[in-house]
This record gives sequence, C-alpha cells and structure tokens, in this order.
Amino acid sequence: MPQPETRAAADTPGLQERFLRTRSLSEALAVPLSDADATIQSMEDASPTKWHLAHTTWFWETFLLRDHADGYRLWREQWPYLFNSYYEAEGDRLMRARRGMLSRPTVDEILAWRAHVTAAMGPLLDDPALAPLIELGIAHEQQHQELLLTDIKHALFQNPLGPAMWAEKGEGAASSPANAGGWHRHPGGIARVGHEGPGFAFDNEGPAHRVLLEPFALADRLVTNAEWQEFLDDGGYRTASLWLSDGWAWVQEEGIEAPLYWRGTEDFTHAGWQERDPHAPVTHISHFEADAFASWAGARLPTEFEWEAIARGQDPSGGNQLDGAAPPSPRGGTGLFGDCWQFTRSGYLPYPRFRPAEGAVGEYNGKFMSGQVVLRGASCATVRGHSRASYRNFFYPHQRWQFTGLRLAKDD
Amino acid sequence: MPQPETRAAADTPGLQERFLRTRSLSEALAVPLSDADATIQSMEDASPTKWHLAHTTWFWETFLLRDHADGYRLWREQWPYLFNSYYEAEGDRLMRARRGMLSRPTVDEILAWRAHVTAAMGPLLDDPALAPLIELGIAHEQQHQELLLTDIKHALFQNPLGPAMWAEKGEGAASSPANAGGWHRHPGGIARVGHEGPGFAFDNEGPAHRVLLEPFALADRLVTNAEWQEFLDDGGYRTASLWLSDGWAWVQEEGIEAPLYWRGTEDFTHAGWQERDPHAPVTHISHFEADAFASWAGARLPTEFEWEAIARGQDPSGGNQLDGAAPPSPRGGTGLFGDCWQFTRSGYLPYPRFRPAEGAVGEYNGKFMSGQVVLRGASCATVRGHSRASYRNFFYPHQRWQFTGLRLAKDD
Amino acid sequence: MPQPETRAAADTPGLQERFLRTRSLSEALAVPLSDADATIQSMEDASPTKWHLAHTTWFWETFLLRDHADGYRLWREQWPYLFNSYYEAEGDRLMRARRGMLSRPTVDEILAWRAHVTAAMGPLLDDPALAPLIELGIAHEQQHQELLLTDIKHALFQNPLGPAMWAEKGEGAASSPANAGGWHRHPGGIARVGHEGPGFAFDNEGPAHRVLLEPFALADRLVTNAEWQEFLDDGGYRTASLWLSDGWAWVQEEGIEAPLYWRGTEDFTHAGWQERDPHAPVTHISHFEADAFASWAGARLPTEFEWEAIARGQDPSGGNQLDGAAPPSPRGGTGLFGDCWQFTRSGYLPYPRFRPAEGAVGEYNGKFMSGQVVLRGASCATVRGHSRASYRNFFYPHQRWQFTGLRLAKDD
Amino acid sequence: MPQPETRAAADTPGLQERFLRTRSLSEALAVPLSDADATIQSMEDASPTKWHLAHTTWFWETFLLRDHADGYRLWREQWPYLFNSYYEAEGDRLMRARRGMLSRPTVDEILAWRAHVTAAMGPLLDDPALAPLIELGIAHEQQHQELLLTDIKHALFQNPLGPAMWAEKGEGAASSPANAGGWHRHPGGIARVGHEGPGFAFDNEGPAHRVLLEPFALADRLVTNAEWQEFLDDGGYRTASLWLSDGWAWVQEEGIEAPLYWRGTEDFTHAGWQERDPHAPVTHISHFEADAFASWAGARLPTEFEWEAIARGQDPSGGNQLDGAAPPSPRGGTGLFGDCWQFTRSGYLPYPRFRPAEGAVGEYNGKFMSGQVVLRGASCATVRGHSRASYRNFFYPHQRWQFTGLRLAKDD
Repeated sequence: MPQPETRAAADTPGLQERFLRTRSLSEALAVPLSDADATIQSMEDASPTKWHLAHTTWFWETFLLRDHADGYRLWREQWPYLFNSYYEAEGDRLMRARRGMLSRPTVDEILAWRAHVTAAMGPLLDDPALAPLIELGIAHEQQHQELLLTDIKHALFQNPLGPAMWAEKGEGAASSPANAGGWHRHPGGIARVGHEGPGFAFDNEGPAHRVLLEPFALADRLVTNAEWQEFLDDGGYRTASLWLSDGWAWVQEEGIEAPLYWRGTEDFTHAGWQERDPHAPVTHISHFEADAFASWAGARLPTEFEWEAIARGQDPSGGNQLDGAAPPSPRGGTGLFGDCWQFTRSGYLPYPRFRPAEGAVGEYNGKFMSGQVVLRGASCATVRGHSRASYRNFFYPHQRWQFTGLRLAKDD
Repeated sequence: MPQPETRAAADTPGLQERFLRTRSLSEALAVPLSDADATIQSMEDASPTKWHLAHTTWFWETFLLRDHADGYRLWREQWPYLFNSYYEAEGDRLMRARRGMLSRPTVDEILAWRAHVTAAMGPLLDDPALAPLIELGIAHEQQHQELLLTDIKHALFQNPLGPAMWAEKGEGAASSPANAGGWHRHPGGIARVGHEGPGFAFDNEGPAHRVLLEPFALADRLVTNAEWQEFLDDGGYRTASLWLSDGWAWVQEEGIEAPLYWRGTEDFTHAGWQERDPHAPVTHISHFEADAFASWAGARLPTEFEWEAIARGQDPSGGNQLDGAAPPSPRGGTGLFGDCWQFTRSGYLPYPRFRPAEGAVGEYNGKFMSGQVVLRGASCATVRGHSRASYRNFFYPHQRWQFTGLRLAKDD
Repeated sequence: MPQPETRAAADTPGLQERFLRTRSLSEALAVPLSDADATIQSMEDASPTKWHLAHTTWFWETFLLRDHADGYRLWREQWPYLFNSYYEAEGDRLMRARRGMLSRPTVDEILAWRAHVTAAMGPLLDDPALAPLIELGIAHEQQHQELLLTDIKHALFQNPLGPAMWAEKGEGAASSPANAGGWHRHPGGIARVGHEGPGFAFDNEGPAHRVLLEPFALADRLVTNAEWQEFLDDGGYRTASLWLSDGWAWVQEEGIEAPLYWRGTEDFTHAGWQERDPHAPVTHISHFEADAFASWAGARLPTEFEWEAIARGQDPSGGNQLDGAAPPSPRGGTGLFGDCWQFTRSGYLPYPRFRPAEGAVGEYNGKFMSGQVVLRGASCATVRGHSRASYRNFFYPHQRWQFTGLRLAKDD
Repeated sequence: MPQPETRAAADTPGLQERFLRTRSLSEALAVPLSDADATIQSMEDASPTKWHLAHTTWFWETFLLRDHADGYRLWREQWPYLFNSYYEAEGDRLMRARRGMLSRPTVDEILAWRAHVTAAMGPLLDDPALAPLIELGIAHEQQHQELLLTDIKHALFQNPLGPAMWAEKGEGAASSPANAGGWHRHPGGIARVGHEGPGFAFDNEGPAHRVLLEPFALADRLVTNAEWQEFLDDGGYRTASLWLSDGWAWVQEEGIEAPLYWRGTEDFTHAGWQERDPHAPVTHISHFEADAFASWAGARLPTEFEWEAIARGQDPSGGNQLDGAAPPSPRGGTGLFGDCWQFTRSGYLPYPRFRPAEGAVGEYNGKFMSGQVVLRGASCATVRGHSRASYRNFFYPHQRWQFTGLRLAKDD
C-alpha cells in the first residue's frame, strides 16, 4: 500500500498517462506469443502470460471498478475465481498449480476484457482520493510485467526446441571486460533507510527509519559470467564448506551444477539459445549460489541497508532496464539499478512500526515476511521508472528464475 | 504386432482408404480445438491433443518411412525426440510429464507435417510386405483417437468454466430405463479364445488357445447411472468391507466419493456440463470402484475369457461407437461393444506362447503386462471398426479417465 | 479361512501340540534379540519383532478368546488398537508406519501376555467347532514367523555395523555347483488345481478346480547366485529391452543394480555379512528382476498352475526350511519347496467360485487380490510343515525383502 | 566457537568439575529409559536418546582426544560414521533419517564408551590452550541434553499408550493466574548487543556490536495457556488474515488446530498426559502460530535485539530451568529466562563481521544462517547455567517440538 505521502502525488500530471502506458506495455509484451504460448505454466512458481494479462485486469476491476465505480458490473461472473492470485479476503480461487489449464478464455477474450476495464477506469483516474490505489495498481501491473517476462522465459526453456520470442538485438556485440573491480566505501554510522518523501512506494518500504551501520564496502559492479565460470571450474558446486547447510542440501538433491539457464557456453534467453557473454553479469542464480560464491571469493553479500545506503542519491533510471517491449537481457552496466536484482544477506522482515494496509490490499506484502530474502536494485526486465533505492524485492533462497545476480560486499 | 494371419489381409482392397480415413479422422477430431486447447496436459497419464496428432505421425515416419521409403528424410530432426512415446529402442525422448510444455510446434505446423507424411506414405501402401505394419499403424492411430478424446475431456474438465468442444447432439432425449436385467448364460467347458483367422489384431490378443470355463452368467446390459446412484446412496464409498484393500486406501487418500465426472446431478462431457441421464451406462469409474459395486450388488466382475466366450460371434459393429467426428457419450445400448469399456477381474498377462515382435514395435504391448487389468468391449469413443471379441484393453486399477464401466457376472 | 474339509481335521490328535509348538517357536525366534532390536521398524512394509509377537497374540485373543471363551476379559484395553493389523471390521488401529514407535510395551510385557493367552486357549483347543479357526490361527502365526525373520533381517541390514542375530551354522561349507539344469516336462491338458482333501488351507487356495495347460517344462532347480552374477555382468540391469515397463521405471528411480542384500561378493544374512555362495539359489529379488532375468535367459516364469501341476504329489517336507529356531539361509536344494519362494507370472486373483469367509477373518486374503503376483513353494524361513502344493503367497512386483527367487519355465 | 575473550575463562577453576557434571547429567537424563526407548526416532528432526549420548561423546573423541591426546585410538572404528551429525569436514555419515535404526550398539555399550572418553579427557582438562574447545564441548553437550529431552518427549508422544518417563512432581499445584500484564519499556536509541566480556559464548553470539532501536515495550510475562485457549476459541486457527502466507499454508496442509501436545484439556508431558495448567506459559507452538497469536492480540513479536536490550543485566539463573535430572515443565515464572524459548521476529543471520571458526567446528552455527528464526531466553529443559542474554537459539518457522512460547512486544 502507498504511504500517506503519496497522496500528494495523486494530482500530479501524468497519472492517466502512466496508467495507459502501463496497460499498453503489458499487451505489447504478449504480442510475440501465440495463444498456446500464453497458456502454458512451467511450474507452480510461474504463471501463464495469459494469466498475468488477466490478473492485472482483475486487480483494477476488483479494487477500483467494483468498489468505486457506480454501477459497474463484472465483465464475467466466474473470472474473479480464475484470476485472483492470493487474496484470501477476496474468497476462493483457482489453485495456483492449475493456472496452466486455462486454454479458455483465449488471449483475445482477455484482451477484450482488458480494453473494457481500461476504458471503464477513465472517470476514476481523476479522483484524487483514488490516486494512491491507482498508483498501487500501476506498480502492481509493472511487477507482473517483469514476472510475465521471467515466467514465459522459463516456459519456453522447457521446450527442447528452444524457441525464441524475440530476435536478438542487432547491436549485441559482446560487452567489454569489467573493470578490475572498485568499491563504494562507507564509513558506517547512522543511516536513514526506507521510503520517504513524495512518490509511490509499497508499504513494505516503510516506515522510513534509521539504522546503524558498521564500516563496509560495496563492489561497484556486478559479478560476471566469467567470474562465475571460475567459481564453477574451481569446484564451487562440489565444495560443501562454501555452502549454507540448506543450500548444500539443495545442490545435492536437485543436482545443481550451474546457473539455471546455462548449457555449455550458451544461455537460454528470450531470443532462444545464445552464446554467453563472459563480461555480462551472471544471472539466474539462487541465494544459495550467491552466498556460496561470495564465500569462495572471500567476501560476503551486503545487507539490504548497506546496499540502500550506497544507492541513496544515485540515479535509479540510468541502468539497463526494460524500456518498451524490447528483449530483456543483462548487458553489464555498472549502476546499482538494472541488469539484475542483487541478493542481500537480509531476511525479508517488517520495518519498525510497519503496519499492513487495511483490507485485501493489505495482503500485498506483509504476509510474505517469512522465509524469504531481500533483493535490491532492478533488473533488465524491470520497467524503467519502477526503481527506487528503497525498493525491496523478495524470493525464497532456492528460487532463481528471476534475473538475479550479485554484487559483493566486505567489511571495511 | 499383427499376427501372421493378417498378412492375408494385406492385399484386401481398402487398406489405402482406411489409412486415409484414419489420418483424416484424427484431424477432424481436433477441429473444434484451439492451439491452446491442443497444447495443455492435465496429468501425466494424459497427453495434449497436439501431441497425439504428432505422435501418430511420428509412428508412420519412424517405422514406415524412415525404415522403408528410399531416401526419405526426417521432416524435422528434433521432432522424434519430442514425439516418441515410450519406445526405449528409439532412444531418448521428452519426459512424459513435460508434454504439455510444447506450445511450439503449433497445431498448424503439425498439420503440415501430417499432410507431408500422409502423402509420403502413398507408395508404401501398395507393398504387401508392409501391410502388417500399416495395419498396425492404423490401429495405433485409432487407439490414439480415443485417447485424444478422453485426454482433452480431462483437460477441459480442469477448467472451472467447464468449456465444451462440441454442442450436445440435438436428439439427445434421455434414454429409456434399462430392462430388468437378463443374463447371457454359459454352461462352462472348453472355450477357444484369442484372435484367429484373417483380419488385424494386436500381438497381445494371441496366440489363440483354449481355456476351461466354469458355468457362469454375464449380464446382458451395462450397469447404469441410476444403479450407481443407489450404490452411492447406500454408502458404497464409505463401506470398507466392499473394497479391495488397495481400493479402500485409494478412496481414503484421494477423497473419492463419486465417478470422476459427476457433480451433483450433472456430468462433465465433451459438450460441457450436462444433466446426467440415469438410464445411460455409468462411466469413468476405476477398477476399484467397479469391483466394489459388484460386491455390493452380490455379483462379481467377469474374467476376460468369460466375456470373450459370450462376445464371440456377436457383431462388434452394432453398438454406440465413434462414427466420424461426433461428440462421444454413452447412450445405453445393450450390445457387448460400444458405450464403455468393461472391467474384467483378469490381470493383463501374456497368453501361452506369447512372444512380442522383434524390434521397437515389440514394445507395443508386452512390456506393460504388469499391474494392470483387462477391459473388454469398446466405448463410445472407440472408432467403429476398431472392435473385436479378442481385443484386450488395459489400465491400472485406479485409472478412470477413459469411458470405463461395468457389466456384472455371476457363477451359475 | 479354512475350507469345509478341514473340519475333519479338527479332531485329529495333535492340534493342541501344534498350537503349543507354534506359540513356542515364535518366542524362540525372538530370543537372540534385545528389546531395542525388537522395537525398530525399517520400512512400512515391515513390522517390528515385538509387533509380530503381539499381533499373533491379538489374533488369538480377538477371534478365539473374546468371541468364544466365556468371561474372557482383554488383557489390556488399549492393546487391540496397537496390534490389529488390517482388519477394518475390528475398528481403528495404529497406522502401519508408526509400529516402530512402540518402545512400550516391552518385549517382556508382551511375553507375559503371550503366556496368558496361550494358557487361556487351553479349554478351547478341545472344541471341534473351533478347530478350523484354531488351524487358521496356527497358520497365521506361522506366516508371521516368516515375516518376523525377514523383517528383522531388513531392520538389522539398515545398521552400518551389520549386526548378526545368529552365528553362521558351523557346517556351512559352500554348496556344490548346480547340475546342468534338467526340466520337469508336462504334456499339457486338463489339470486339477487348488486345495482339496483333508488338512488345512487358506481360503485363497480354493475352490479346487480344473485348468487347461499347454505343454511346458519347469526347471528342476532354482536359479543360482552364479547365474545371477552372469546376468549382472552382461548388463542385465542396464538393458531396457529385458524389462517390463514398470520394472524399468523402478530400476531407474531406485538405482537398482543387484539383489537387495548383495554388497560386492558378500550377502547380508541373519549371521551378518557373509561371503556369497555362488551355488546357492539367488534370493531377495523382485518380480521385476525375476522377469527380466527370465527374458535374458530366453525363458519365462511359470504360471502358478504350471508350478502346481508339477508340485502335486511331490513331498513338500523335503526341502531346506525353518526347523526350530535356526538361522535361515538358502542352501541350494532342488526340491520345489524350501530355499526360496518362486515367482510365477500369475496375478494374484480369485479362483472360480471363490468367496471370502464371513466376518473379520474374511479380510485375511480376498481383499488383497489386486496388483500382486503369486509366488509358490516355500522358503528357508517357512516353517517346515507350512507348505502345500496349493499354497499361494503374494507380493507386489517391486517387493524383495522376502526370500524370493525363481525357477525358469519354457513352452514345450 | 568461543570468542577470544573466553580464553580468559580457560583457567578459571571449575572447568573440570563442569565437564564431569555435564557428562554425568546426560547419563542421568537417560536413566528412566529402556534401551528400546533410547533407540526410537520419531521424525527426521529428532534423534534417539542413544544417539545423543553417543554423538556428544563423538564430539569429545573427535575434536579433543583424536586431535590432541597423544596416541589416542578410536574406541570403535565405525562409530564416527554413526555418530557424526552434520560436519561435512568429518566425512560421510549415517543419514539423519536412519538414526532410529541403531538398535546396536546398546545403551550399555554407549555408556561404556562414555566412561572411557570421560576418563581419557582427564589430562586435557588442565591444558589452557584447549579450554575454549572444552568450553564448546560442554556447551554442545548441554544443548544436546535439551534436545534429548524434547526428542524423547516427541517419541513417547507417538505411542498411543502415552507412556511417562518421570512421575509428575508432587508439589505440582496449579500455578496462580498471571498478572494483568505489565510491560518493560525501552526508550529506544543505540544499544549494545552480542556477547562480550569473559565467559563462554557460541560464535554466532558475536561480535558484540551496536544497534539502533525504536522505542518499544516488551511484555513482562509469557503468554499463557488460558490466553491461547481464547485465541483458539475465537477461531484463530481458521482466520487467514491473522497468518503469514507460509503459516496459513502450513495450517491448511497439516490440519493444525492447537499446540503440538494439546488434547482436549490435557497436555502430553514427560510424565504422560496431564491436566493442562491454564496459568502456565503456552509451549510447543511454531513461529507461525506465535506470529498469528501476536496479530490477534494486536501486538507483535519482539526483535531479537529488543529482547536482548531488556535482558541485559537481568539474572539469567533465576527462572524455571533444568536443574539435575528432573522432569521439565513450564511453570509460569515471569523472568526472561526459563520456562520456554521465546520467538522473535528476527531471521537467524550473521552479525556484522561474523566469521565462523576455522575447521570442522566452524560448521557449528554459521552454515545454518538461512531460513530460520531466532528464539531467545531459555526453557525449562535448558540446563541452568546454560543461559545468556546474548544466546541465540534458532529453528525453522514450522518446528514446534521444542519448549517454544512467546512474549509479546509493541511499539511505544
């Protein structure tokens, strides 16, 4: 839920335009996909493209139109059951693992629904009282744009044919070697963290508060594929002492030997199998792998507050991020935002005085504060503009189908 | 594999026509389905429609064209990996549970392959030496037509919207009550069973041999929905003493309370949810359920040889079976063939002197002779003409997504 | 349940003596075991020694004393809940997988119960009307003696220390090579099978009836360890074409590479790890393995009726069987009885006109007639005297903790 | 691993006495148990009593005697394989889930080993260089004393007979109602946390450092059974909105309806089933339950540093803790130590500049810093003296077989 400050943002120009652009981008991302592509679900963690298109529409219909648009009637009575994700307060819903069974409705039927809901939203976009909820809806849909991209990548990866949904970008010359690796140093002391000021943020980014840091240093660049290859060649995946206990069990049970999309010298991408760029940041690793690499490198993962202390004041819009419906891939930038989400060693836990919002939208973030780790930054699949120094992404330590990578830290 | 006798059938007129009609029917069955419908897989036991269309084509390409057509080149090098089902001798293949991940190739691409292979088969259809293999290929594709129908029914059933792929047949007035229930009586003695004479049969139907039967009686009609409702109302699903031990464990663990597609007074069908016809044969029950019902009714299931002894000499073409691309549903006929497969109490085991064929096609039947039960007859989803008194269908005792029902037997 | 004929046996001298000898043998088998040994359960299929001692006592208390001894009061009110095995008609019971949690009652407490029940049975042993039930109770306890032996072997095998419960028999010189392998030939025709005449038999051995056999031959000896080693060395466990489909899946998933208790050139036995005798019969194989071996050897498994036709008239008491509380091990005899149970290719199914007994004891056999295979003969762990040509043992095709082996058959 | 400061403690008088008292207490705890009781393992999380007695001895033999006692020879060559817990650096070991298969060695054999090792340790106890490792060994054995108690409780609980290992303490009058519930208030600001000064501590308790706290209040007593009953009666276990998402899934899947050992108005205890004391602290709850209760109560769980800030300077020896081999049960004290471990909302993560020790003992704590939550305090099963304000216990959020309870916190 948005913080109180964001109400100020409600009447800024641009809400309507941002709403329409967000709706439109979701649809653009699905253009290269057939109805069948958009239907399949590769694992319980992932959802079909079709489902993302519908769920984001359900969000607007449920929390805005149904509750705030006079006389609005549900487009289809049964669809909320299909497209509610996890909001217990909104009642029963299709089991997550069965989302891939929805060959009907078709993508076209969902696009018709989208058009209807987008149009119906018109009058509400001018109501300042609804602006925080609309900001939330936009941010929500932007999150699902990233999930849509990572989920379809995982689905297409299952296919032995290795299908591409986009052609590789023409300019894609291999990036140049990373610099030797400098450090952002921080002297420690009291730092202010969490979202404050105008502008939207999720409820889990606040309240803003102070934390006490020890002196530390944060790498000024991401770990690369070439460096990961060294770790691998050095037996990193076979050396128990480098791993957290749960991580070692995971490596053994799942037979993990490399990042998720590695195959020989190739990576699976939205453009199919491509030669791996050694200088690009490594991605699609789990927290367990990131932690083991850091041990191997004689370093550690940063805490989320160390990361934020360095990121504050930096421009979150400079990196390699999703900018229109272009094929996302990590390209090796050195900013804190873009390319990939960066694992921290912090558990995903509530900030002091955190309170979830009232009602169903209060389920957005707070109820997931158990067993997950915080990632910071933004990835090449994160919509440009959907980045903040205070942003807290979170996944379970074994998950790795997102564009996840790492940036080392050390005590100073 | 065909028996030696079937070689005689090789030069009968009609092989070419039957080949073409079979190829064409497969395609007709898929017409009401979208690419997305044809892609989804609802469980490991079932396969996508698309996969059936492709696998039957792989069969022709592999065992006929590749091996017997000079200079034939594979349509796509990678497709055999995708569409081999279980032939170990044909090498590695996509894991069964991952068949639902094939959003590519599209149905249209598979139809193009089908057309190519159908055409390429032309010259081979006249070669008498290949006739047994071609008969096998036709029978194989006919089996997959039935599986296509039962698999897509199961897939559409997963969708809470209850989508239909066909409109219900207009004439569908409820059938009339079953007769009071007469019996086919048999005096026992030595009976001849198994396939003999001209005409195609699978290898598991032979060799023909003699068996010794005790006097028995076989019901002259199938158990109906109305009778099943009595069983259910009488607590049949909650009475341990009626069940086989494995069956009772299955009922408890899976929470089984009714046939697979029952919901209140409705059945899920290829035409969506429809009011149940009480006089139609009950279908979509497991062997465990059939056995428990028979116990409750004070009767038993027949052995496969009792069934065959009665069926010999009866016309296998008279019942309610698939006849063109029409919506299959059980209608209450009283013949031994049609409406539904009928459980026997016989385990699926080899006949005396049974030998699987040499080579990969020898994997067709023999290697499944463990843990399964024999069903006899034919169902409303079995292509008319694909029925024989000696036909042995087989499933595991818990499976029930086929049109499976029962016909009672008793000692006499 | 005993057949009607066995009533004749009721007043034969010796019932009392056989009862006492049976009770006593159960206790003797447990003598080498500590209370802790007798408590552990290595898998759901197996039960603790303590539980066998108690369950066999529960059987007498429940079906004889409670129902037929005036004024008999249960020794402990809660124990029937602990020691009922699978009799649904006798109410709720401890989950099978939790039998290993019973550190209490102690073995000594159970022995006290045994003594009490054995004594209380005294007056009932003279009642001719109860003789069939008492015969059943004796046979039941004898079956559990064999299970006690195979279950504790499996439990001790889990211990990396490889503990022995008995010293190896002193005389145990390696047996001599098997003969070249002759055959019992049978001309086929109508054969009589199933139990008939006086003497006890389980309900599943009847009714006696006629079957029609094709000409066949049954090996006059068991397959040996040396022969199995050849199969193994020839890649038998890695050759898909030799295996039933379910068997191949089992080999892959479980990583099966040899019989259960093989380790290098040693076998695990009741006397701990011992050098394997190449000329002794192979044991502790599954039906899947037996079937694959037979395929490899160019032979097949016999049907249960082929086996019985040869065994009829042979002396069931001549082989190497349990004779007092001695360490059981296969020794290489050539009789049809003793050394090991022999897999047949027959499913475990009811005979014509089979009816389970009324009441709880009717659950003894009939409800297990699904998914299992028949084994014939007797093993080195079967009490001498507990063998009949009509005896039908049954296990699931993957199970192999019994003394299971094979004898080849072929068409003639 | 001990902090450097603890070296100072090495030559304090009493190390030898504490070593001997610790060895002796372990043995005393096992006195009421039979060899069978000491053998069983109720779940993978728990270990047999016998195993604890042996593992703690393995620790001394491995890290002290083998590495530091000249000429020491292993008592039994195979036992390290059996009794290593999770030290990868010490090589292969028995799978955790198979610990319950060790009916051999017997308890008596393990006691003989214990005596040998205890005696052999004599000369090493005077070596100041080894003092830190000996302190670690004592603390390690004390931790296993608590696990021994909670594991055997869980094992005996599996037995439907509800066996007791101790008689209930005579004085056990019900405790008196808790006070209305006051609060320890804290004004926030910079607080010092982590172990410092002389005395032993585990490596995960350091390095000592400063943290910044917001003003908060910590309840001055534990939540009671009576309060938990209110939560339960108010539908707490059926109200999704109170639960973390993972917690709600756990409640649904496991059918959780009450604390682990509740049955009607009784609790399972080391003295068997006992009437529940409403004024005693609730115990045997999971983190998920504790968090849901706090939500229901309009409060929250404290962070581990809030708890520590209040606990610093309090006497850790005043509460109801294990004091000799007495039956542990929560009694309702109001101190921060004793009765039960108290859940915090903090993830179990490394402190700034934390480094695990070199070598195998470095696996003691650090590798578990993933997915677990911190508990603070001490329980009635924690040996008196084994308590510190800086002590960090940790478990997964679903585990509840320890004496776990909660103390509420709130923002101030």
